[in-house]
Amino acid sequence: MIRIALDAMGGDTAPEAEVDGAAQALAELPPTFMVQLVGRTADIERSLTRHAQLPRKRLQIIEAPEVVGMAEKPLAALRSKPQSSIAIGLGLQKNGGSDAFISAGNTGAVMAASTLVLRLHPGVQRAAIGAVLPTGKNPLLLLDSGANVDCDARELVGFAHLGAVYARDVLGRAEPAVGLLNIGEEDEKGNAVVKEAHQMLKTQTGFRYVGNVEGRDVPAGEVRGGPLDVVVCDGFTGNVVLKFYESAARVFVSFVKREAPDVLKLPEMANVLKILDWSMYGGAQLLGVQGVSVICHGASPARAIKHAIRVAVQAVESHLSQDIGAEFARGEVVA
Amino acid sequence: MIRIALDAMGGDTAPEAEVDGAAQALAELPPTFMVQLVGRTADIERSLTRHAQLPRKRLQIIEAPEVVGMAEKPLAALRSKPQSSIAIGLGLQKNGGSDAFISAGNTGAVMAASTLVLRLHPGVQRAAIGAVLPTGKNPLLLLDSGANVDCDARELVGFAHLGAVYARDVLGRAEPAVGLLNIGEEDEKGNAVVKEAHQMLKTQTGFRYVGNVEGRDVPAGEVRGGPLDVVVCDGFTGNVVLKFYESAARVFVSFVKREAPDVLKLPEMANVLKILDWSMYGGAQLLGVQGVSVICHGASPARAIKHAIRVAVQAVESHLSQDIGAEFARGEVVA
Repeated sequence: MIRIALDAMGGDTAPEAEVDGAAQALAELPPTFMVQLVGRTADIERSLTRHAQLPRKRLQIIEAPEVVGMAEKPLAALRSKPQSSIAIGLGLQKNGGSDAFISAGNTGAVMAASTLVLRLHPGVQRAAIGAVLPTGKNPLLLLDSGANVDCDARELVGFAHLGAVYARDVLGRAEPAVGLLNIGEEDEKGNAVVKEAHQMLKTQTGFRYVGNVEGRDVPAGEVRGGPLDVVVCDGFTGNVVLKFYESAARVFVSFVKREAPDVLKLPEMANVLKILDWSMYGGAQLLGVQGVSVICHGASPARAIKHAIRVAVQAVESHLSQDIGAEFARGEVVA
Repeated sequence: MIRIALDAMGGDTAPEAEVDGAAQALAELPPTFMVQLVGRTADIERSLTRHAQLPRKRLQIIEAPEVVGMAEKPLAALRSKPQSSIAIGLGLQKNGGSDAFISAGNTGAVMAASTLVLRLHPGVQRAAIGAVLPTGKNPLLLLDSGANVDCDARELVGFAHLGAVYARDVLGRAEPAVGLLNIGEEDEKGNAVVKEAHQMLKTQTGFRYVGNVEGRDVPAGEVRGGPLDVVVCDGFTGNVVLKFYESAARVFVSFVKREAPDVLKLPEMANVLKILDWSMYGGAQLLGVQGVSVICHGASPARAIKHAIRVAVQAVESHLSQDIGAEFARGEVVA
């Protein structure tokens, strides 16, 4: 039984959304896992009263008396609150009592604690946030989506390897097509870091490097007529693009709502709205740590938590973390 | 009479799209301008045969025997082809024979030639490409959209001033709200350059600095409940975002087409498609040069050329370049 620790105190509407999401996951997903709700037992129990029919054998409460606020400075908060749901949940995984951690809480704190507690796989220079994006073709992985604002070329190459393993294990792409986000396809395009990374990526193995890709190729989900499974960039660009895309989807729907309000009610539009519904994609993962750490939006509704649980289970079942360890143990990405 | 020089040899379908676009502009826009078609006279005349009813008094052909190809290296091409449509068109403006230049040709060559021929206003460190984006509220100006891959903090501050003048003159925003694209709203967010620019922007006058804005705020067209008229970023991030947005709009329409094909034919969807139609926004401007230089997509159809002419006329009528000169003559942005 896979054990998914869920930060019950993270997120803007914790613990309700978290408890409801756990309940949805337990009711709707294949029963290969159990959920460990980490947080203040009394608060969790109160939210659980609405779910009397839940299989309590697949649900565990792990007491964590402290809560890291959304606006707190990550490192200071972790230092002053060793009994936070974030610290306890990740500690549980570190000690073998859990297989994955999910939080919609303070992203900076979850990233810092994941790296400190779980530690990076040997050979990984920096952990990166991998986010799955809907495209005109298949979903693709964008990384880094915000963990590292400044990156050097070697770090970008490391992200390519992290992303390639994710694409194989979780997205099911046997030979992942990896692109480098740039402002043009030619070799001489981009800033110094990107140009160096482009040259280094050409010599890597373990994935198919498809070269520089442009902003337009990301939503298209293809480049020069071929598939695009992983897009590598620094965490500044990735974070801007990720937030931009979510917002653009909302804005486009709002255009339709304003100009053609009845259209959104058409049954055939349900699939369009589903593709554009961010919460379907199940949270971003901090890739490179020894373990599984899934980061959700603070505003995640219950169904987003459910999908995050699905994604965490997939990561554990596919041995994503172990495969990342093996990829970097090959020594191709040299620090 | 405002004189708009149009590179008839730029663009993937030149000179057809250019000549057709000029014809549309002459037929549909207020008659305050004339068009100077710059390129190979014979080619232009051949395309003009389809427009026998055009007011030839408002149409001039300027012979330019050489053409800069889309794939040519900008500086090398300009050096080896002094009689290119780009060089001739910009030279005409420099010598007082024209008021604005528009090209859908080699972007790098147009940028380089504009800076070399027209020169920067005193005090401007770098010219920036300003692109107008549709949002959930009013259109906003994103700059730099691709002229400078690496920028320092002072250059970003310069872009804020360029954008503010544009927002006042062309977008009609009396007191432009200027934001700095970042990965969070707090002071300590971002890389070193962005953090420094954020502090510098707080002390600038001539616009209302609304602080750090995130990717999500750009398509929304507002930030923290208030308007957003100008978004400042380096040319790498801006180029990625711009191309991403164009593509996302196409992808969203393709989702609707795939899932609900009849919806796109509904008359009430026409306005949505119009909002999402990139060619309506009329080309990006290279801001900071002494003059008007409008850069269009290589793939611009005739109606995009028409809108670019509209935008160029607006820039000339509003004295955009002179106002930018005056803004930088204030000496607030110190090199």
